[in-house]
Amino acid sequence: MSRINLGVTGDYHVHLREGKMMELVTPTIREGGVSIAYIMPNLTPPVTTIEKVVDYKKQLQALSPKTTFLMTFYLSRDLTPELVDKAAKLGAIDGIKCYPAGVTTNSQAGVDPNDFSDFYPIFEAMERNDLVLNLHGEKPSTHNDHDHAHLDDTNVDEAIHVMNAESKFLPALEKLHKDFPNLRIVLEHCTTKAAIDMVEKINAERKPEDPIKVAATITAHHLYITIDDVAGNPINFCKPIAKLPLDRQALIKASTSGKPYFFFGSDSAPHILSNKVRNEGVCAGVYTQNNAIAYIAEIFDKYNKLDNLKKFVSDNGIGFYAIPKEKIVNHDELILVKGENIIPTLIGEGECVVQPFKPGQKLSWTVEWESK
Amino acid sequence: MSRINLGVTGDYHVHLREGKMMELVTPTIREGGVSIAYIMPNLTPPVTTIEKVVDYKKQLQALSPKTTFLMTFYLSRDLTPELVDKAAKLGAIDGIKCYPAGVTTNSQAGVDPNDFSDFYPIFEAMERNDLVLNLHGEKPSTHNDHDHAHLDDTNVDEAIHVMNAESKFLPALEKLHKDFPNLRIVLEHCTTKAAIDMVEKINAERKPEDPIKVAATITAHHLYITIDDVAGNPINFCKPIAKLPLDRQALIKASTSGKPYFFFGSDSAPHILSNKVRNEGVCAGVYTQNNAIAYIAEIFDKYNKLDNLKKFVSDNGIGFYAIPKEKIVNHDELILVKGENIIPTLIGEGECVVQPFKPGQKLSWTVEWESK
Repeated sequence: MSRINLGVTGDYHVHLREGKMMELVTPTIREGGVSIAYIMPNLTPPVTTIEKVVDYKKQLQALSPKTTFLMTFYLSRDLTPELVDKAAKLGAIDGIKCYPAGVTTNSQAGVDPNDFSDFYPIFEAMERNDLVLNLHGEKPSTHNDHDHAHLDDTNVDEAIHVMNAESKFLPALEKLHKDFPNLRIVLEHCTTKAAIDMVEKINAERKPEDPIKVAATITAHHLYITIDDVAGNPINFCKPIAKLPLDRQALIKASTSGKPYFFFGSDSAPHILSNKVRNEGVCAGVYTQNNAIAYIAEIFDKYNKLDNLKKFVSDNGIGFYAIPKEKIVNHDELILVKGENIIPTLIGEGECVVQPFKPGQKLSWTVEWESK
Repeated sequence: MSRINLGVTGDYHVHLREGKMMELVTPTIREGGVSIAYIMPNLTPPVTTIEKVVDYKKQLQALSPKTTFLMTFYLSRDLTPELVDKAAKLGAIDGIKCYPAGVTTNSQAGVDPNDFSDFYPIFEAMERNDLVLNLHGEKPSTHNDHDHAHLDDTNVDEAIHVMNAESKFLPALEKLHKDFPNLRIVLEHCTTKAAIDMVEKINAERKPEDPIKVAATITAHHLYITIDDVAGNPINFCKPIAKLPLDRQALIKASTSGKPYFFFGSDSAPHILSNKVRNEGVCAGVYTQNNAIAYIAEIFDKYNKLDNLKKFVSDNGIGFYAIPKEKIVNHDELILVKGENIIPTLIGEGECVVQPFKPGQKLSWTVEWESK
């Protein structure tokens, strides 16, 4: 196979920022082979109003007219059930993103993942409006040097750190699903075998005829790297951090499985190079948007799973989000084409330059659009 | 207590490099409060000849006349038992450093830690000459993306990665001690509870009247940081990488315990700033030399263990290495003095600048020398 039709592709976890960065990266959604993009709300300040989300979408649409933008609110105390009802009825948002406070870029306004109960009225509103809850599934670290918490070194056996922050979050996912069995939830950017196992377990308990309520996205970069590749390579630093070889293997198995509750969300998160290459406080995020589908295809190819690629990058996401045809602004289909593809070392110019994942390395596939 | 006499201090794991870097950092041994410095041989090429080690020591001594330099060979196939005998008889070296190939800065010439048997004739020569074997106790990673090993993702349950590389090495330490019960061995820069437990176990099996054969050094920076503090902070990246809160707690307990088989080895490893702040291939190493004792004192103070500080930074090292008085070139004693100490953000000038650990932060102790 040297040409594979992947249909109307989707990336269900996309960071586009604002201003010059937005202008730079928004067109790369389509260049990277993605038709439908699910947009994260962690701007400064976070997206929590109908006015802001409508305006933001308008700006994005102008930058990339053929891209279908699905928009989100940022879960915070600024939201009310009434606002959620209204936003849903207007079709302004498709979901709400939940960030635990302090775990990643612009998550300061996030929630305490040890106790979601204050947000239960919001979740009820989401459930009745059939909005999706997108979870950044990490608990905040407890013992890092930064806050000198280690000077009180009690409870180290229970410590939460970057390596177990996701697995420690999973009981909260299970409880949310139990408390809101009809709320559709996505565990975003899974990085551990434990997360995959939890999503499998929840789906195994579902009756086959029932719709999927809990799904997971998997990024491109987490199919490649482990903690070894983050150590000493700030370009590969993101949250959740890449974990161990057995975790990566579980992610590869899940993404290539064809199972309908695993689909692509790149978590492509651009930062200007000077915020990635610095002595401390390196920004968390890996930029993969401009070759999103090609990165994924490379892995599926290596594992002889290209037959399942369309499920992962197109069908499963459209299925879970139940996206009606009329909501898709352009029905061009993506063709994956065998051919050498050298990843640029930088995109952008001047101050606003971004280094893509695996700069200068070769991929074996490119993409082109077939008009429909 | 606002002044504490720490006697003739020692740092049993010091990287001084060559050329301009050597000129910059060698004087900081004494400035940082260290009298005896045990020097690592990972130059380019590695130190494996008597001529080189004698010349290197001469250069260092000229740069810091009051410092006692203890010198080492680099374990490699360039060494022969005859050379080891000769170097020992001349007093040219005090020990030999063993680097597993490929795990850290300039370790390319190192050995395969899965099979030390080729080096047994060297260890026999070391044992009969009472030289110390200094182990970098890590196994090389097996599944990092760099070498695309993951494309064959077999045996991931047995994978070695930066988080378990030290604990996976410990059986090799145990076997070496069993095969060479009279060889003095130091497990350098311990970073895990597992390593501390192994050193404790080996010493628990020793008859109290017998001399210590297996000891461990602990760095300053590993008493502060965990993997969370390395993620996103390349200045804190070193090998072995900082681990988890429970590991750090074990290191703090061991170092402050006063037990004679735990002593200070800073592993201060200077790199020019541009090799630490880059997009990939950040050099492994944390520079702590210019405040070596003050970093340690801060931790002992916070844990109310200043009474044991002299053991950790002076007595235990001199005891294990059995350093005769006449070998110490200067008998000045170090006085730890309570007082604000702001860590410089950079040392050096021009291209050759180094960023110390915790740049710009405050410590509560300074040091001064009392002439003897």
